[in-house]
Amino acid sequence: MYKFIDGGVTAPQGFTAQGICASIKPSNKTKRDLALIYCDTLCNAAAVFTKNLVKSDTIAVTKEHLKNGKAQAVIVNSGNANTCNADGYEKAVRMCEIASDVLGVDKENVIVASTGVIGEILPIEPIEKGAEAMRGKLSKDGGTNAAEAIMTTDTVKKEIAMTMTLGGKTVTVGGIAKGSGMIHINMGTMLSFVTTDAAITADMLECALKEAVEDSYNMVSVDGDTSTNDTLAIMASGKAENPEITEKNEDYKTFVQGLTEAFRMLAKKLAADGEGASKLLVCKVSGAKTKQDAIKVSKSVICSSLLKAAMFGADANWGRVLCAIGYSGADVDIKKVAVSFKSSKGIIDVCKDGAGIPFSEEKGKEILLENEIEIIVTLGDGNSEAEAYGCDLTYDYVKINGDYRT
Amino acid sequence: MYKFIDGGVTAPQGFTAQGICASIKPSNKTKRDLALIYCDTLCNAAAVFTKNLVKSDTIAVTKEHLKNGKAQAVIVNSGNANTCNADGYEKAVRMCEIASDVLGVDKENVIVASTGVIGEILPIEPIEKGAEAMRGKLSKDGGTNAAEAIMTTDTVKKEIAMTMTLGGKTVTVGGIAKGSGMIHINMGTMLSFVTTDAAITADMLECALKEAVEDSYNMVSVDGDTSTNDTLAIMASGKAENPEITEKNEDYKTFVQGLTEAFRMLAKKLAADGEGASKLLVCKVSGAKTKQDAIKVSKSVICSSLLKAAMFGADANWGRVLCAIGYSGADVDIKKVAVSFKSSKGIIDVCKDGAGIPFSEEKGKEILLENEIEIIVTLGDGNSEAEAYGCDLTYDYVKINGDYRT
Repeated sequence: MYKFIDGGVTAPQGFTAQGICASIKPSNKTKRDLALIYCDTLCNAAAVFTKNLVKSDTIAVTKEHLKNGKAQAVIVNSGNANTCNADGYEKAVRMCEIASDVLGVDKENVIVASTGVIGEILPIEPIEKGAEAMRGKLSKDGGTNAAEAIMTTDTVKKEIAMTMTLGGKTVTVGGIAKGSGMIHINMGTMLSFVTTDAAITADMLECALKEAVEDSYNMVSVDGDTSTNDTLAIMASGKAENPEITEKNEDYKTFVQGLTEAFRMLAKKLAADGEGASKLLVCKVSGAKTKQDAIKVSKSVICSSLLKAAMFGADANWGRVLCAIGYSGADVDIKKVAVSFKSSKGIIDVCKDGAGIPFSEEKGKEILLENEIEIIVTLGDGNSEAEAYGCDLTYDYVKINGDYRT
Repeated sequence: MYKFIDGGVTAPQGFTAQGICASIKPSNKTKRDLALIYCDTLCNAAAVFTKNLVKSDTIAVTKEHLKNGKAQAVIVNSGNANTCNADGYEKAVRMCEIASDVLGVDKENVIVASTGVIGEILPIEPIEKGAEAMRGKLSKDGGTNAAEAIMTTDTVKKEIAMTMTLGGKTVTVGGIAKGSGMIHINMGTMLSFVTTDAAITADMLECALKEAVEDSYNMVSVDGDTSTNDTLAIMASGKAENPEITEKNEDYKTFVQGLTEAFRMLAKKLAADGEGASKLLVCKVSGAKTKQDAIKVSKSVICSSLLKAAMFGADANWGRVLCAIGYSGADVDIKKVAVSFKSSKGIIDVCKDGAGIPFSEEKGKEILLENEIEIIVTLGDGNSEAEAYGCDLTYDYVKINGDYRT
């Protein structure tokens, strides 16, 4: 039903983008840190944001601009979060004006976001110069530069593109994301911008975004810290000319499922590239009494520092999985719990009926030395399932965060 | 009112103890790993336990034995948690029988606890032999050996002793604790045994224990993982001959305040010696609307992996303090928040009215390089206060937990 294709945020019809090095941190002379995303027509648009009480002023500005459900461009920088600054709001508005001028769009139709260090004044001059340098240079190829420009301590770009069929028409969805640290299961991304050429009303787009985020971005944790700048925004150009989605019909369901799959792929990329991470952890929970119980268990396991450290050490320490299940707050009968570890090297059962079973430590090690690990938890108490995404806890997480600002 | 004195669990009248190396882990040939604590009279007793659904069977046995509010001895081992084992209950009962035999006490009056790896069968023979070797050897001096015997990855013994005056009589309280990893703010210790010669009913003892734990052990976090074996037990011999505390009178209040102070000292020792920790973090919150808000903020700050890593790096990254306040769930007006860092090298203000203020990075570094740091948060919105205890996140935490079982 969905087909992943090459490309990113510029894959859908109507969208172009670019990213350049604007030296927002004066010491940065090479890494792209400013991006523009543009659509040649006014889009229906929606966004969800961090639930942290401490919010970047960019969020206040973007919320105002999306009140009418319309947007045509995104301006976003890395290197500075523009958060907890007295002049944050003013600077965020200024960024929209800059994008408006360079792209020839109404400033009220610009989405703005920032990511980086909290509490340092955002220098506006590099943004003016950087945006000016991109004037007339936005292109289909520029999408990948935009993906790079939003990275902070990310080590790889995160892009996705997929097609699906809605009302007989091929609809494309594209997206970029950045994650790394300060990632938690409450809208667990720092920034993600998603585009589509689907025809869909702003209201339905917002509903679809909120549904799709639940089983994807909301199931990721790197370190349990909810960022101040989380922004996930989507713009729909309507250029695919499918019958406009105006209610929760079959096309809507198809669209939501497609978005969910796309977000899941990006969520896994975020988790795998969590700060200092050496491996992706996926906790698959089944047999829960309710969906909420399954979610609680999978999140608790993926968030346990002790388990994350054990996974780094390729240690099949299933006792820590049980411990995390025990304090998850879920309604669980521990005596029915089974745990297995799985990777491309095979699968090993380590716990049944809430107690350890004999297993080969060598086989366990072999499985856990891979860079994508599934922690399979069977609760044996119902039919609900959930899946959460995380990463191991490594020396490099400590190193990166021990001195991030310098 | 309270006077801290030298000594530990044997400081109060009537108590003796011992600890030896029983080689519960076969590879351990030197570290003490089995302890007995004994009182020469039957004590009133009470305990609180982990809230993890996954519980060591030692907890079930201890709960049964404390139903009548009486105890006379403790047997405790490190090196194996006796948790998630099919024969866990039977082994815990057997440990009580062993203590009963060696100490000549009723087996129903024995408190039992275990700490170490989850899910490995507890070998009973070393415990039989080890306890036998302690027969007739419990002494006042043996208390410090008992403190050593309950350590796992702890690097220092945790002992405390204090005196107070109740009804004109000098009452002594003594205690030992072990912490290190898997420490969270829900009864945030793995094991602690406290003794006193105060005369107090079992009911009042239980009330006092529950009150004292709130502002002490319940405010510690090392890594956010709630252990399966947490046990805090107290025994009161009555030998100080103060007028027995039978209701919540002035003596009761004095006793609770003393216990709270003693627990706080032990809690700080746990935090300072958290797995891999290089420094103690104390988050002092004032000006909160309610006590619950103050607690939420202080715990959230102390639990933030990002802040903990920044403190390891002596980086005055106050943005992470604000971020943690923002997702704490407390009712806070961010625009009123101020943050300072303090140590023996001085104090530095870094944030006021929710925004950064200029400060000397060099001075910040100097302050944060010390091994005891206060993070002072002023919410400016009320009169409630709280204090939470934690530690930094270091390479050694990852190292210790990357391969704990081998």
